[in-house]
Amino acid sequence: MSRQRRILVVHGPNLNLLGVREPEVYGRTTLAEIDAELEKRGQAVGAAVTCFQSNHEGALIDRIQEARGQVDGILINPGGFTHTSVALRDALSAVGVPVAEVHLSNIHAREHFRRRSLVSGIAVGVVSGFGAAAYRLGLEGLLAHLDQRG
Amino acid sequence: MSRQRRILVVHGPNLNLLGVREPEVYGRTTLAEIDAELEKRGQAVGAAVTCFQSNHEGALIDRIQEARGQVDGILINPGGFTHTSVALRDALSAVGVPVAEVHLSNIHAREHFRRRSLVSGIAVGVVSGFGAAAYRLGLEGLLAHLDQRG
Amino acid sequence: MSRQRRILVVHGPNLNLLGVREPEVYGRTTLAEIDAELEKRGQAVGAAVTCFQSNHEGALIDRIQEARGQVDGILINPGGFTHTSVALRDALSAVGVPVAEVHLSNIHAREHFRRRSLVSGIAVGVVSGFGAAAYRLGLEGLLAHLDQRG
Amino acid sequence: MSRQRRILVVHGPNLNLLGVREPEVYGRTTLAEIDAELEKRGQAVGAAVTCFQSNHEGALIDRIQEARGQVDGILINPGGFTHTSVALRDALSAVGVPVAEVHLSNIHAREHFRRRSLVSGIAVGVVSGFGAAAYRLGLEGLLAHLDQRG
Amino acid sequence: MSRQRRILVVHGPNLNLLGVREPEVYGRTTLAEIDAELEKRGQAVGAAVTCFQSNHEGALIDRIQEARGQVDGILINPGGFTHTSVALRDALSAVGVPVAEVHLSNIHAREHFRRRSLVSGIAVGVVSGFGAAAYRLGLEGLLAHLDQRG
Amino acid sequence: MSRQRRILVVHGPNLNLLGVREPEVYGRTTLAEIDAELEKRGQAVGAAVTCFQSNHEGALIDRIQEARGQVDGILINPGGFTHTSVALRDALSAVGVPVAEVHLSNIHAREHFRRRSLVSGIAVGVVSGFGAAAYRLGLEGLLAHLDQRG
Amino acid sequence: MSRQRRILVVHGPNLNLLGVREPEVYGRTTLAEIDAELEKRGQAVGAAVTCFQSNHEGALIDRIQEARGQVDGILINPGGFTHTSVALRDALSAVGVPVAEVHLSNIHAREHFRRRSLVSGIAVGVVSGFGAAAYRLGLEGLLAHLDQRG
Amino acid sequence: MSRQRRILVVHGPNLNLLGVREPEVYGRTTLAEIDAELEKRGQAVGAAVTCFQSNHEGALIDRIQEARGQVDGILINPGGFTHTSVALRDALSAVGVPVAEVHLSNIHAREHFRRRSLVSGIAVGVVSGFGAAAYRLGLEGLLAHLDQRG
Amino acid sequence: MSRQRRILVVHGPNLNLLGVREPEVYGRTTLAEIDAELEKRGQAVGAAVTCFQSNHEGALIDRIQEARGQVDGILINPGGFTHTSVALRDALSAVGVPVAEVHLSNIHAREHFRRRSLVSGIAVGVVSGFGAAAYRLGLEGLLAHLDQRG
Amino acid sequence: MSRQRRILVVHGPNLNLLGVREPEVYGRTTLAEIDAELEKRGQAVGAAVTCFQSNHEGALIDRIQEARGQVDGILINPGGFTHTSVALRDALSAVGVPVAEVHLSNIHAREHFRRRSLVSGIAVGVVSGFGAAAYRLGLEGLLAHLDQRG
Amino acid sequence: MSRQRRILVVHGPNLNLLGVREPEVYGRTTLAEIDAELEKRGQAVGAAVTCFQSNHEGALIDRIQEARGQVDGILINPGGFTHTSVALRDALSAVGVPVAEVHLSNIHAREHFRRRSLVSGIAVGVVSGFGAAAYRLGLEGLLAHLDQRG
Amino acid sequence: MSRQRRILVVHGPNLNLLGVREPEVYGRTTLAEIDAELEKRGQAVGAAVTCFQSNHEGALIDRIQEARGQVDGILINPGGFTHTSVALRDALSAVGVPVAEVHLSNIHAREHFRRRSLVSGIAVGVVSGFGAAAYRLGLEGLLAHLDQRG
Repeated sequence: MSRQRRILVVHGPNLNLLGVREPEVYGRTTLAEIDAELEKRGQAVGAAVTCFQSNHEGALIDRIQEARGQVDGILINPGGFTHTSVALRDALSAVGVPVAEVHLSNIHAREHFRRRSLVSGIAVGVVSGFGAAAYRLGLEGLLAHLDQRG
Repeated sequence: MSRQRRILVVHGPNLNLLGVREPEVYGRTTLAEIDAELEKRGQAVGAAVTCFQSNHEGALIDRIQEARGQVDGILINPGGFTHTSVALRDALSAVGVPVAEVHLSNIHAREHFRRRSLVSGIAVGVVSGFGAAAYRLGLEGLLAHLDQRG
Repeated sequence: MSRQRRILVVHGPNLNLLGVREPEVYGRTTLAEIDAELEKRGQAVGAAVTCFQSNHEGALIDRIQEARGQVDGILINPGGFTHTSVALRDALSAVGVPVAEVHLSNIHAREHFRRRSLVSGIAVGVVSGFGAAAYRLGLEGLLAHLDQRG
Repeated sequence: MSRQRRILVVHGPNLNLLGVREPEVYGRTTLAEIDAELEKRGQAVGAAVTCFQSNHEGALIDRIQEARGQVDGILINPGGFTHTSVALRDALSAVGVPVAEVHLSNIHAREHFRRRSLVSGIAVGVVSGFGAAAYRLGLEGLLAHLDQRG
Repeated sequence: MSRQRRILVVHGPNLNLLGVREPEVYGRTTLAEIDAELEKRGQAVGAAVTCFQSNHEGALIDRIQEARGQVDGILINPGGFTHTSVALRDALSAVGVPVAEVHLSNIHAREHFRRRSLVSGIAVGVVSGFGAAAYRLGLEGLLAHLDQRG
Repeated sequence: MSRQRRILVVHGPNLNLLGVREPEVYGRTTLAEIDAELEKRGQAVGAAVTCFQSNHEGALIDRIQEARGQVDGILINPGGFTHTSVALRDALSAVGVPVAEVHLSNIHAREHFRRRSLVSGIAVGVVSGFGAAAYRLGLEGLLAHLDQRG
Repeated sequence: MSRQRRILVVHGPNLNLLGVREPEVYGRTTLAEIDAELEKRGQAVGAAVTCFQSNHEGALIDRIQEARGQVDGILINPGGFTHTSVALRDALSAVGVPVAEVHLSNIHAREHFRRRSLVSGIAVGVVSGFGAAAYRLGLEGLLAHLDQRG
Repeated sequence: MSRQRRILVVHGPNLNLLGVREPEVYGRTTLAEIDAELEKRGQAVGAAVTCFQSNHEGALIDRIQEARGQVDGILINPGGFTHTSVALRDALSAVGVPVAEVHLSNIHAREHFRRRSLVSGIAVGVVSGFGAAAYRLGLEGLLAHLDQRG
Repeated sequence: MSRQRRILVVHGPNLNLLGVREPEVYGRTTLAEIDAELEKRGQAVGAAVTCFQSNHEGALIDRIQEARGQVDGILINPGGFTHTSVALRDALSAVGVPVAEVHLSNIHAREHFRRRSLVSGIAVGVVSGFGAAAYRLGLEGLLAHLDQRG
Repeated sequence: MSRQRRILVVHGPNLNLLGVREPEVYGRTTLAEIDAELEKRGQAVGAAVTCFQSNHEGALIDRIQEARGQVDGILINPGGFTHTSVALRDALSAVGVPVAEVHLSNIHAREHFRRRSLVSGIAVGVVSGFGAAAYRLGLEGLLAHLDQRG
Repeated sequence: MSRQRRILVVHGPNLNLLGVREPEVYGRTTLAEIDAELEKRGQAVGAAVTCFQSNHEGALIDRIQEARGQVDGILINPGGFTHTSVALRDALSAVGVPVAEVHLSNIHAREHFRRRSLVSGIAVGVVSGFGAAAYRLGLEGLLAHLDQRG
Repeated sequence: MSRQRRILVVHGPNLNLLGVREPEVYGRTTLAEIDAELEKRGQAVGAAVTCFQSNHEGALIDRIQEARGQVDGILINPGGFTHTSVALRDALSAVGVPVAEVHLSNIHAREHFRRRSLVSGIAVGVVSGFGAAAYRLGLEGLLAHLDQRG
């Protein structure tokens, strides 16, 4: 892992409300704090972490497309788009770098319509649950995958 | 987190072949090496990690039952039992401690019959994919969950 | 009901064409007229009604998020997003106020793919059909619900 | 709307227990009070409202059949028959006047077997939820529909 | 066929409206006319035909039960109960005589929920469509079946 | 019914074995006998009945196509093609005359894959069961339908 | 269990034929004998048992509603309504006392459409099979449940 | 019932924890107490009851096979294997004696995957719910069945 | 076809990457080249072709709405929105002109979730596959349809 | 594309009636005219086009098999066999040349059973709708595909 | 097995291409070689083997019907008709002799639509896979079955 | 086939009862006799056959794992585990040698839940039915497959 990894972190819809909405469910960690921690952890292992959030599917796709040739991996929490967006999946495929998918809550223990992820089919790994720690675990998993590929 | 965490790691059927069978798919890390790393990582954060593997569903259930009152969390890769064993799920429920579920490969990108996990419904989190790193991430996620609960 | 209710009315995609497109089907009432009537009815019972329309899922989510802490209830006609947007549902949930869902046509008597609403699961009530009157009925139902809760 | 509208209100099985059974769920309004309010509201707008309740599917069908040529619209809460009675649907169709369907609770947020309504396919509109107010909203919607048809 | 056949004809819900409701769809033949024709045809071949109609599932079951030991065959148009009444099927089974099922319209060319008949599984034959002639054909088929059995 | 009706009777695969194969199940009436009876019954009411059987789907389609403009109605027992041949359905549709469908056994009381008929959706009526009598009933039903249309 | 339990026993459609219809299948015990035995067993343990049968869904619902506040538990064999009556389920729920469901035959070993019970979801226990003994077992189970609750 | 009945009672996985795990849900009765009661009840009616529990599917099958020719009936609570073990069903079939199936909780009111029992298809009766009393009821039902067969 | 046809060409998400991403799969033709060819072909037959691409569902809907009364037909490759956007379908319906749907790859030979198109139900024709030629074929088909309608 | 392409055009059942049957639906172009146009268009671009129609699945398979080594591509409208013939699909696969599938009407906007094509899975492209123009578009698409492959 | 067995071997559509089409998949053994081997093996054990192939479903049915009373068993590879032909199944049933079904490839490891065989339900045994050896195994199995029956 | 083949034969649960249980169904051949015959047949063609049976899924997996590098092929009758054991499938995959699957009865003609085999997806061939001969046929098929691979 001699050269620096470049990682794009993408947060889907409603994740901007983290730490604010229903803290008893989602905890009190804000998205800014999560981003800060991911960047710090990235620095510790020589990885440049950039973060982006939007409630707009199109804006997420635009941002992911821009990453083509600019990043070594993508860490994404697709939020509600997990279950409904083929376009987001296609955008992630088009970038051609490994994708790690994370969810704050364990989606397999929630409503039936949340159990199918359109993104998982193209992800190298998925972390579902563990709260805010999911992001950190996903970043580690993604970096481990990149290291393994050399 | 003043007192020491006790974690039971459970490996389901065929995982004893790790590093031996199809190394181009599953990597060259053996189960012994994974166990050693998990124990070492546990020590680093003050957690006592004990590992167990069996190809026998009944033996796995017996071992999990014995853990009642003896452990603070269970990390399990149920292998092929993931999709078929209600009894294993019931045993994990009966212990009454948080459960983290891990898979070496991303089961959501494999055959259709591997997409349903009977264990996920009672897990605090699931790590699916990332290869051998999945265990490490699952352990971290489980410990983070225990810390958060205090 | 001593203090004034604040109600956000949200119109989903293609509803800006109301009264213009296929008037023989959807009637000749325009969206502006509907909004005007809802505001007037609101005033009559001491409720401040604000209206918003967009064809952009992200813009709808942004607007709904802004309503957190600012409104007492949301009246929404999610249009085509009714059947496909988990993200919109999540945004509505995050606001934490009662939601009433309305549809101009009776969606249960249309194509099969229009029969499932992702929003209904979190709504206090749904009005489906009756043409433009659906909005008025939905507003009344929402206010009745708020009154009943005190 | 020069001439008087005649509206038949039909209550299906178990609705005679309204206000008596589980008041914390269904509220303390009795069916008699609902009927009284509907009649009063009818009078206010020049509509003659007649009400009928039965736990017998056959009695409901008989009553609906008698309404042929005698009423201008039917407001029905089919209760448990909503999901199971093709015969009730056929009776409503046979009368040949607009039908409005109402439910006290939002059936789309309840058990899976309550989500399909056999009546909705022939209704001009459906109100599902908002508690006892559902009847009032349904009556208004039905009258609005009749006015619109001229 | 030396001795006289006794046939019970049973009409389910809403069939009392035949010839009255939607004559452009169901024709102008009334149920009384159908019954008269069936009785006359029965006489011609030495069969005593008795007819019964009710909108009440329970009344139909009571009547069918009374037929035990009194009739040689049952001709039934179960109407809307065709698709929903296990109890009616059980009553028909309990009588222990051949059952012929008829429908005025071809139920296989109508709404999806009309395609499954709970009665067909125990019928010796089904006539679906051909309008009012269906009854006559069903009676002939039933008598032919009885003759064949000797 | 002043002018003579022309009826084509079509028998699908394996019906040439009638009366020969498994007589205890299908009876001892041969196809030739059935054809003779149908022709005789036709003559009695002034209808010219022509019969055709083939085990070849293509030959059946060819024969049905030839009937365009030559017949007033088609009586068909599609045999095993009932459940599998869209092409046969299309051929029947193309002729543009009423179609009656018959089956010797009640297909709704047999294996699951025999319950769906691709032909029923375009038939004016279906007779299923009653043994060899089914043909006679189907012919009567078809003629009654033609008479009714004038 | 100092004070006397009051138990309502409800028999659904066609159960009045017990011991009469198909005795080789259902045995020769009549419903009157079953009722007598249940009453006798009730007396032995200080429980007042009242029995009711009807082929009318509405009559069953009326009778169950009357039991509100008058009984401590309901034992029901819903017969053919087991699989089709949401209204019966709602009536049982409305009474607010424990319900035990029984079936003479093992419904899980019969036709597919008999496997789903709408009543089971609200029952404290179900006995399916064992013939006429099912009633006795159900009564015992219901009384045991009541004793346990104190 | 002159000669003594021999009954094998089989408990599936996790039932060894009865009375220990989650007593507020499953009660405080231990498996040993249940076995003792069943043996005592057996003695009272001249039946020899033998009990066996294992978490190992294979051990359960071995034990059931050994019972061939040695017992008159089997009472089984298959626990989590209820829903997943064809092999257990086959073993029970192979013994060739009546089988009664019991469950402590009403499996029809639990998760969807617990509603299908692979054992029920070959059982003479099923008791589902009523807590620990289920075993007693199942034993009674099984003995009643044996008595009835003579 | 005396007057000039006006055609709007709409490209959905990720199609801006054409010719850039995975050229071995999608070919080396860029979207600009496709647009240029469509415009040139349009000119050759007297049709004014205008092109638009966006990754934003809302922007696509806005653009389609603007086309009301301004175009004679719409050619659309909905990309990933094909399978998920009811709102896009509704927008296309609202314009009230013929719609032709095209896909670069044969969606029927890809993943299961790509086989359902929400747009096809309202299209006059669909071209699926043939690579970049699909656009040209779709344009020809759309123009042929317009010519045929006169 | 120096050497001449050889294209086999295959028409399935009932297509011989084109232009004759229901001209208001399928237009007045006959199959002979379509074949003539395809041959002419082929000549214009140096492709030899041969056409074949049959109502016999076997004859179609025979003809397709003969084409092995004799043609460069196949254009097929499988008619009613589209949805039902695995054998036709296998024959097309066996030839080993690119296949283009066409339909006169948009099969995705018709009956449910017409939406699945067994041929599409092995086609390089599908044209569904646009009337008789579909053949021309399919030929162009097929030739474009062959040119692209060199 | 004193008298000679007569076996009819039937090959369905496209099997005439064996050894010619895609030899790397299906091997280089031709159908003629397979037939020769089966006849030779038959001779060795005193069985007369006759072979028939057709791409025409009707021709296969005709040939199978002719075998009535002429053969002791049928060995069939129904090819693509395996999954779609009820008529073929009916023809095989009508012959009234044991049927063995064989497939060159393991159909359970191929496309989903190849997994259901309409023939298997009436076969005494099925061999799926093992390449050309499948025929030999099927013949042996069929003869073993005939021997066992005596 | 110069060197000796080594074949492991694996029998799943309940197969130890062969020849003992229900001989009228499964025949009188015991498992020992089958094993003896397979060994003898192996010797005849220079193949060393080893046999193993267990009712324990874990023991079967252990035994299969031990075969890694020790055998050239596996012949398995998974019994009841056929339909439920992903772990067994994974163990077979891990060995990396060809697998042949056999069943004594034709599982495709039995209960619905026996029709899906989790093993078939990785088998080179399947023999289902023909009684005890299935083993012999499976062994031949497996050896033929090995010979063909060289």
